[in-house]
Amino acid sequence: MGVNHFNRDPRDTQFLLHEHLGVAKLLAYEPFADFSVEHIDQVMAQAHQVANQCLGPAMQDGDREGCQFQAGEVKVPSAFHDCWRALRQGGWLAMANDRRWGGLGLPAVVSGLANEYFFGANMALNMYPLLTSGNARLIEAFGTEADRELFVPRMYSGQWAGTMCLTEPLAGSDVGWLETSATPDPDSPDKRVYKIKGRKRFISAGNHDLTENIIHLLLARIEGAPHGTKGISLFIVPKIWVEPDGALGRPNDVVCTGIEHKMGIHGSATCALHFGGSDQCRGILLGEPHTGMAKMFQMMNEARVGTGLMGLALSASAYDAARTWAKRRVQGPPFTDRRGQRVKIINHEDVRRMLLNMKAGTEAMRALIAKTYYLMDVARFEPDAAARQKAAGLVELYTPLVKAYCTDFGFSLTREALQVFGGAGYCNGFPAEQYVRDCKILSIWEGTNYIQSLDLVGRKLGLEGGAVFQGALADIQTFCADNAGDADFGKCFSLLSRAVGVVGFMAGGFLNYLGDGRIGFIPLNATAFLECLAEVVMASLSLEQALVARRKLATVDPASADGLFYRGKMHGARFFCQRVLPAVFARQIAFEQEDASALEIPEACF
Amino acid sequence: MGVNHFNRDPRDTQFLLHEHLGVAKLLAYEPFADFSVEHIDQVMAQAHQVANQCLGPAMQDGDREGCQFQAGEVKVPSAFHDCWRALRQGGWLAMANDRRWGGLGLPAVVSGLANEYFFGANMALNMYPLLTSGNARLIEAFGTEADRELFVPRMYSGQWAGTMCLTEPLAGSDVGWLETSATPDPDSPDKRVYKIKGRKRFISAGNHDLTENIIHLLLARIEGAPHGTKGISLFIVPKIWVEPDGALGRPNDVVCTGIEHKMGIHGSATCALHFGGSDQCRGILLGEPHTGMAKMFQMMNEARVGTGLMGLALSASAYDAARTWAKRRVQGPPFTDRRGQRVKIINHEDVRRMLLNMKAGTEAMRALIAKTYYLMDVARFEPDAAARQKAAGLVELYTPLVKAYCTDFGFSLTREALQVFGGAGYCNGFPAEQYVRDCKILSIWEGTNYIQSLDLVGRKLGLEGGAVFQGALADIQTFCADNAGDADFGKCFSLLSRAVGVVGFMAGGFLNYLGDGRIGFIPLNATAFLECLAEVVMASLSLEQALVARRKLATVDPASADGLFYRGKMHGARFFCQRVLPAVFARQIAFEQEDASALEIPEACF
Repeated sequence: MGVNHFNRDPRDTQFLLHEHLGVAKLLAYEPFADFSVEHIDQVMAQAHQVANQCLGPAMQDGDREGCQFQAGEVKVPSAFHDCWRALRQGGWLAMANDRRWGGLGLPAVVSGLANEYFFGANMALNMYPLLTSGNARLIEAFGTEADRELFVPRMYSGQWAGTMCLTEPLAGSDVGWLETSATPDPDSPDKRVYKIKGRKRFISAGNHDLTENIIHLLLARIEGAPHGTKGISLFIVPKIWVEPDGALGRPNDVVCTGIEHKMGIHGSATCALHFGGSDQCRGILLGEPHTGMAKMFQMMNEARVGTGLMGLALSASAYDAARTWAKRRVQGPPFTDRRGQRVKIINHEDVRRMLLNMKAGTEAMRALIAKTYYLMDVARFEPDAAARQKAAGLVELYTPLVKAYCTDFGFSLTREALQVFGGAGYCNGFPAEQYVRDCKILSIWEGTNYIQSLDLVGRKLGLEGGAVFQGALADIQTFCADNAGDADFGKCFSLLSRAVGVVGFMAGGFLNYLGDGRIGFIPLNATAFLECLAEVVMASLSLEQALVARRKLATVDPASADGLFYRGKMHGARFFCQRVLPAVFARQIAFEQEDASALEIPEACF
Repeated sequence: MGVNHFNRDPRDTQFLLHEHLGVAKLLAYEPFADFSVEHIDQVMAQAHQVANQCLGPAMQDGDREGCQFQAGEVKVPSAFHDCWRALRQGGWLAMANDRRWGGLGLPAVVSGLANEYFFGANMALNMYPLLTSGNARLIEAFGTEADRELFVPRMYSGQWAGTMCLTEPLAGSDVGWLETSATPDPDSPDKRVYKIKGRKRFISAGNHDLTENIIHLLLARIEGAPHGTKGISLFIVPKIWVEPDGALGRPNDVVCTGIEHKMGIHGSATCALHFGGSDQCRGILLGEPHTGMAKMFQMMNEARVGTGLMGLALSASAYDAARTWAKRRVQGPPFTDRRGQRVKIINHEDVRRMLLNMKAGTEAMRALIAKTYYLMDVARFEPDAAARQKAAGLVELYTPLVKAYCTDFGFSLTREALQVFGGAGYCNGFPAEQYVRDCKILSIWEGTNYIQSLDLVGRKLGLEGGAVFQGALADIQTFCADNAGDADFGKCFSLLSRAVGVVGFMAGGFLNYLGDGRIGFIPLNATAFLECLAEVVMASLSLEQALVARRKLATVDPASADGLFYRGKMHGARFFCQRVLPAVFARQIAFEQEDASALEIPEACF
C-alpha cells in the first residue's frame, strides 16, 4: 500500500453545497425527493473516505509502475484493481445516473464534487470509471431498450468498462476526417450490425485488465455516407461479443497494437486500437445513421466539464501538498525580519502569495465548476421553464470556460505548487511533479483549449441571439452596482465592473471584425477573450462567496474553525480580484493594438 | 545512435554577433587580438555541428535510460560517454577561459551562444562540463599557483570533472545554515588541509563514470567560525585524493548515498553525498577562511546567467520542434476559411499566434542573454574605465532578469510548444514533453526565482545609488523618444515608453514602502516588478533589432533568406511589444490596489 497524498479539506465543498449554491433547493425537485441534506453529506463523506483510503494510496505507485503492454493486452498498475473494486462497491461509477439502470440518481453537483475528490486522489485511475459511465450514459440515451438492458447496468456497476473511440492517426482535432468504415454485415439478421474496419489512436482505457469486457463506442463512416462530420455514425463495439442474454461470446477482432509512453497519467492506458484487422469486427449502430457526431457531442460537453474538473482536482491537490509542506519546511527568515530566526516557509511573504494564489484560484475554479454542475441539475429538473432555459444557457456558456480556463490556470497552479517545494518538488518523493505531469494533457484532449475558445466565440456568444451572454454580463454588473463602495470589497467590485466592461468591449470588437471582414482578429484574440470572461465569472462567484462568508462570520467566533474558514474566503476573494483579475486589462490593451503580425508573417519566417 | 531533435537555425545567433551587438568590437580588445570574425564563425559552426551530431542524438536516449545508481557509484546514460569525448576534443569545456590554463580564450558572448546550442541539444549532458569549468574557474581565481597547476588544466580539458557542493538537507535556499564542518587536519603538514564532515544534497554531477576523478568544491564551516554566511569557507575536496604531482592517490571518503528520481534531466546525476563518514575525508582550503560565500557568489552569478541560458535553450528547441511539426501536420481548415480544405496547421491562426509568441519570445530572451554576456566581455576588457563600469553595472542589473524571467517565460514557452503538438506532444515520441520536464528545475536552482527578485529589488536597484537602474530606464526612454511616431513601430515605442513609466512607478513605490514601514509590500510585488523590468528590457532589445532589420531589409531581396529573416524580426518585435509587453499594465493595476491579503490571512486559513 502506497502513501496517501490526498489531503483535501472538505470544508469548501460543504460551503458550496450548503451555504453558497444550496443543494437543498435541488432536493426539492421531484427526482431527488428521496434524498435529504444528510444523505448528501454522507455521500460526500464516503467519497472523501474512498479517495483517502483507496485511490490516494495508489496514485504514486500507479505512476511508477505504469501500464504494461504485453502480447496485445494491457495490465494496469496492480494497486488499481482494489480501487476499481472499491468504486464498484460504492456505486461510484454512476452517481448521477438513472436509478432505473443502476445509477445512484444523485444531483450532478454532488457527483461532480465527489469526482473532484476521486480525480484529486488519483487522476489516472479515475479515467476508467469516467469513460465507462460516460459511454453507458450514451447507450442509455440513444440505445434501444435491448441495448440498454444489455449494456447499461453492467457498465454502471463496473462489471464491464467502456471507452470513446474518436481520434485516428490522421484525424485528431479534426474528427470529421476519420477513415474508420462500417459496412452492413451480410451475415447478421440484425440490420443494425455492421462490419467495422479502422484504426483509432489515443484511446484512453482502450485496453486493460480491470474488467472481463470493454464496450467501445466508436465513430465510423458507413460506406457511402457524406464526407465530414455529417457522415459519421456511432457504434457499440464490444471487445468480446455479447450475446443477447448477456453472455460473453467470441473475441470481436479488436486488437490493441500498443500503448503510449506519456508525460503523465502513467496508470491510464492510452491505446492504439485496430478494429477488424481480420475482418471479424462487428459493431451495433447506436441510433440513426449519420447522427454520431451530435450524439457524441452530448457526451463531449459533459466530458469537457469533467476535464475542467480534473484541472481543478489536480491543482487543488497540488495546493494541499504545497500548504502542508510550507507549514513544515523551515528555512531562513522572512523579508520583513531579515535578521531574524529561521521560520517555517509559510511565513515567507512570497510563499504566502503563492499559497493564496493557489487557494483563491482553486476555490474560484471550484465555484465555477460546481455552479455549472448545479445549473445542469436546474436545467434538467427545475419545474419553471424559464429558469430551466436560463440555466441551460449558462451551462452552455460556462462549459468552454470550465474546460479551457480551469485546465490552463490549473496547470499554472500545479507549477506554482512545485515551486513552493523547491528542489524537493522536482523529485518524485513528493507528488508535486506528478500533478504537473498528469495535468498537462488536459489542455489538449476533449477539444484543445483553442477549440474551446472558438466554441465560445463562434457558438456560445450568439446563443439566443446573444441573450445568454449579455444576460450573464448584466447580472454581474447589477451585482457590482448593488455592492459599489462596499466597505470590505469596494475596490474588488470596482475592478470587476471595469472588467465586465472589457469583456463587452471585446465581444463588440468581434462583431465589428465579422462586419468589416477582418475576421482573422477573432481567432487571434479568442483565447484571450475566453480567459477574460472566465476571470470575470470566477471573480463574481468569489465575491458572492465572500459576502456569504462575511455574513456568517458575524455569527461565529472568528478564531473558530468556521471563523477562520470565512476569513480565508474573504481574503481569497480580495486576492483573486486584485491580483488575478487585472490580467483582463492587459488583454484589453493587447486587443486594442489590433496586432496582425501573426497573420502577416510569412510561413518561411518560422 | 538516437534521433537528433536539435534543429536550431543559426541565423539569429549570427544576427546577434554581427548585426545587432557586433562581436567585431570585442575582437578589438587586446585579449581577443588573435581572433578574427571568421574564427568566431568557425567556432559557432563547429559548436552547431557538435550539438547536431553528438549531443542531440543522445538527448532522448539519455532521458529514457537515465542515471543508474549501483553500489555507491553512478552510471550516466551510455551515449553520454561519446558526448563527453567530443566536448573534450573540441576544447568546449572552457571556451571563454584563460588560455594559460587550457581555455580557448574566446569572448563570453561566443561561449554563451555556443552553450545555447549545447544545452538546446542536450541539457542533462551539458550539466557535466558546465559544472566542471565553473568549478575550475573558481580554483583559477582563488587557488594558489600549485592548486591551479594541479587542477585547472585537468578540468578545462575534461580529464577530471567538478561539482559545486552547497545544498544540505536542512539548508537549501538558506545556505548560511549549513552544517558541514571542517577541522584542521593534524596529520597534514599543509595547514590548508582540513578534515571534512557533512552531508550534501541535490549535487548535480556529484558522482558519475565520465571521468577518473571528480573535484568537489564544497562549502563548510571551520570549527569555531561565526554562524551564518560569514562563517563559511570553500574547500577543494577531490573524490580521489590528488598527490602533488597530479597522480591519483586513495579514495577520499566521499560517498554517494543515492541519486534523485526527478521530473526531468534524467541523464544528469543529482546526488546525495556523504563526506567523511569514515573520518577520512580531506579538503584543501581555497583562499582565506570564512570567505567562501563571496567566492561562491562570483561563480553563482555566472551560473545564474547560465541557468537563464538553459531556459532559452530549451524553449528555443521546443519552438524548433513545434514549428517543424506545424509545417508537417495536416488538420482541418483555418478559422478564416472554415469550409475550406485541410491544411498544415501552421496555417491555423492560433497556431501562428503560438509560434510567433515562441519565436518573438525566444529571440527576445536570446537578445537579453547575449547582451549580458557581451557586457561581461566589455566589463572585463574595455580600455575605457567608464564604459567598463557601465557594462559591469548592467551585467549586475540584468543577471536576476536573465535567471528568473528566462526560466519562467522559457517554461511557459515549452508548455506552448507541447500544445502545438496536441496529443502527440504529451507522448515521448517527440521531445516536446521532455523539454517541459527538463526546464522545470530552472526556476528553482541557483537561487529560486523569488530570490532573484529580491536580489533585484534589494541589491540591484540601489547599485551606485540607483544610477545603474535609472540610467538603464533613461536610455530606453531616450530610445523611445528618438523613435516616437515611427511608421512601422510607433505603437510599439509608445507602449514601451508607457511601460518604462510603470517600472519607474513601481520602483518609487518600493522606496515609499521602505519609508513608511509597509515593507511587506516589497516582497509581495518583487516578482511582478522583475517581470516588468525584464519585459521592458526585452522589448527594447527587440525594437533595436527590428530597426536594424528594417535597415538591412532595404538592401536585400525581401523573398531571399535574409529578407525573410529581417521581416520575421520586424513581425516578432511587433508581436512582443503588442502582445507580451502589455502584461506590465496588468501588474501596475494589481500593484496600485495595495492588496495585503497574503500577509494578513491567518496561517490556519491555508
